[in-house]
Amino acid sequence: MISRDEAAELDRDDPLAPFRREFLVPDEGIVYLDGNSLGRAPRATAAALDRLVREGWGDRLIRSWSEGWMELPRSVGDAIGALIGAEAGEVVVADSTTVCFYKAVAAALDARPGRDEVVTDAANFPTDRYVLEGIAAQRGLRLRWLEEADRVNGPAPQQVARLVGERTALVTFTHVDYRSAAILDMAAITREAHEAGALTIWDLSHSVGAVSVDLERAGADLAVGCTYKYLNGGPGSPAFLYVRAEHHASLRQPIWGWLGRHDPFAMAPGYEPAQGIDAFLSGTPPVLALHAVGAGVEMVTRAGLGAIRAKGSALTELAIALADERLAEGGVAVASPRDPARRGAHVALAHPDARALCARLADRGVLVDFREPDVVRLGLSPLTTRFVDVWDGVEAVRDALAR
Amino acid sequence: MISRDEAAELDRDDPLAPFRREFLVPDEGIVYLDGNSLGRAPRATAAALDRLVREGWGDRLIRSWSEGWMELPRSVGDAIGALIGAEAGEVVVADSTTVCFYKAVAAALDARPGRDEVVTDAANFPTDRYVLEGIAAQRGLRLRWLEEADRVNGPAPQQVARLVGERTALVTFTHVDYRSAAILDMAAITREAHEAGALTIWDLSHSVGAVSVDLERAGADLAVGCTYKYLNGGPGSPAFLYVRAEHHASLRQPIWGWLGRHDPFAMAPGYEPAQGIDAFLSGTPPVLALHAVGAGVEMVTRAGLGAIRAKGSALTELAIALADERLAEGGVAVASPRDPARRGAHVALAHPDARALCARLADRGVLVDFREPDVVRLGLSPLTTRFVDVWDGVEAVRDALAR
Repeated sequence: MISRDEAAELDRDDPLAPFRREFLVPDEGIVYLDGNSLGRAPRATAAALDRLVREGWGDRLIRSWSEGWMELPRSVGDAIGALIGAEAGEVVVADSTTVCFYKAVAAALDARPGRDEVVTDAANFPTDRYVLEGIAAQRGLRLRWLEEADRVNGPAPQQVARLVGERTALVTFTHVDYRSAAILDMAAITREAHEAGALTIWDLSHSVGAVSVDLERAGADLAVGCTYKYLNGGPGSPAFLYVRAEHHASLRQPIWGWLGRHDPFAMAPGYEPAQGIDAFLSGTPPVLALHAVGAGVEMVTRAGLGAIRAKGSALTELAIALADERLAEGGVAVASPRDPARRGAHVALAHPDARALCARLADRGVLVDFREPDVVRLGLSPLTTRFVDVWDGVEAVRDALAR
Repeated sequence: MISRDEAAELDRDDPLAPFRREFLVPDEGIVYLDGNSLGRAPRATAAALDRLVREGWGDRLIRSWSEGWMELPRSVGDAIGALIGAEAGEVVVADSTTVCFYKAVAAALDARPGRDEVVTDAANFPTDRYVLEGIAAQRGLRLRWLEEADRVNGPAPQQVARLVGERTALVTFTHVDYRSAAILDMAAITREAHEAGALTIWDLSHSVGAVSVDLERAGADLAVGCTYKYLNGGPGSPAFLYVRAEHHASLRQPIWGWLGRHDPFAMAPGYEPAQGIDAFLSGTPPVLALHAVGAGVEMVTRAGLGAIRAKGSALTELAIALADERLAEGGVAVASPRDPARRGAHVALAHPDARALCARLADRGVLVDFREPDVVRLGLSPLTTRFVDVWDGVEAVRDALAR
């Protein structure tokens, strides 16, 4: 049996351990295993917002727009881009993940006129499914739901291959499954899509800042992702949108706003899209939120994705080993891939009473997520989650099961 | 000639004068006449953000979603709704003004199938025009630009009447013109639209928190507006979207996201819109930004729109009187309505060298806006602008003209 001391020893050897001190961690003894739903608050963010309000906004006022604010969607975007294998100038931060995904889908569909099918996972993250349904209803498209994916390992390239064809305009999946943490084979699925002549959109919400992503090498066309999980950008922080440079001239997003126009402050008649990724902007950049995202991304960049990925694998390995040891006899099954190379930074534990278990855990200060229909999801955010947190969390599940 | 002492006397008698102390006002002696582009930073916002980061986010973490965060789009929306004649449950705050306007336009057009024309002002605010152009291109609609509006007084109801007809799906205008400050006759224009069977969208960006708006009485169908001007919500703060309650069941916005679904956390298959205004949400609420907006709105609410409107009129009256006295001989013409009842809280001064004048003013710390083609725009935000600021600003224009 793995002891708590052994977990504590892993913490002592953890090169990322010092990062935890850069976050606001409350005194009360909660066990936070939900950093993939809302990443913790960096101390730097509190300082950055205070300085922004007092100096950039309070003192410099409108002048700040020409002193860096206008660049924020791209400058924070480039910092995120470096974490996902994008080139400079391929990522912007603005709008919610839902709105970014909507823009990406509409742009991709417009670039494939005459094709009327979209392929996606029937178990894809809800907001992605709903956006697709809305656009399909508007345009009379057919959604080809991939229904038969393995629950633990997620959609396989050959399953995608069976659904794509000459009618396929778009293939879109979430790279790391929000429930099982399965990492999809982005390069192989993208290849299947491209062979059919379709474009791809990847949702990186559960990937960015946790696992390695190489959009460039995978040949991905578009991507979106959330910044309030492993990037610790703050509740409801704006999302990012990636568009491969070779598509900048041909793809056009549907929400034509002044910030997407070349020379927005000419306020001239007639929309003319900006060059490059700027054309994917619409409204005024959310400056407060962008400062918060920037502070979160800076820490991930400084820690380095190699170290983050290694610790994420070690944390999930420990969680799985402990679940096997302590929870299996209580009826808990590990519902995440066993191969760490195919698993993101969270672990799904399946149990028929998962919902009640999660409520009991919350009552004792162990914060996890319930995911329909039967998953207790442990989010293990490498910059802030300790190995002893994993040990304490699993022990709490065992205790909750015993009641 | 009105002396600076007389302006100072107006400040001494100003019941709203104490509010200025609730804002962060830098020591350096700038004259800020741009609060309609970016409202000043409330001290309360700095405190609210700090508390949010430390407590709501840092301590309570994911639990905060069920402790008020999820309600923020509606609770801040209701507070704004009270300023614009909306009922509770008719306004949400989320997304940029551009995205809110896009949703409103698409929803309105879908509700008028078979009609293919949209009527708007050729001089409408750029982002509104661009959104309309994008949707028109997508759907093959005809935009009927109102070209002949009087530059100072803006579009008149009878001009709108000549453009609407049985093909008109939507009539949309900005209530207070961003350049001239002309207040449009919302009730009369809405009546013309309704008589033709069209819906209306009003952009309240330069109205909310500055002038009286009664959407209910005017019969307006939808409205959007910006929160970083007179509401002092912070740079790029999220916008609001108003949908008249009677339209909630029939209008459907195009960006179907999880937050617009009834019971979002069921994460169930199939989008089913929420009841009421919630159906107009899409992505995760921007919590940091919503706290900032809430702090700004609270001050406007506490000051009261009656007092704010009265001071706005007095500030613009003074600016116009001073311009007549001191700037007319330098070739400056007042390009805002002379009737304060028809004028918002800014003043347009037309001069052939307006662009160069604005640059010269900025060099000496007098911050105003240049607006194409020839307007120096003085924004007079009632909670923070003093009468002596108006005097100093006009004097600076005179000095700049003299060079």
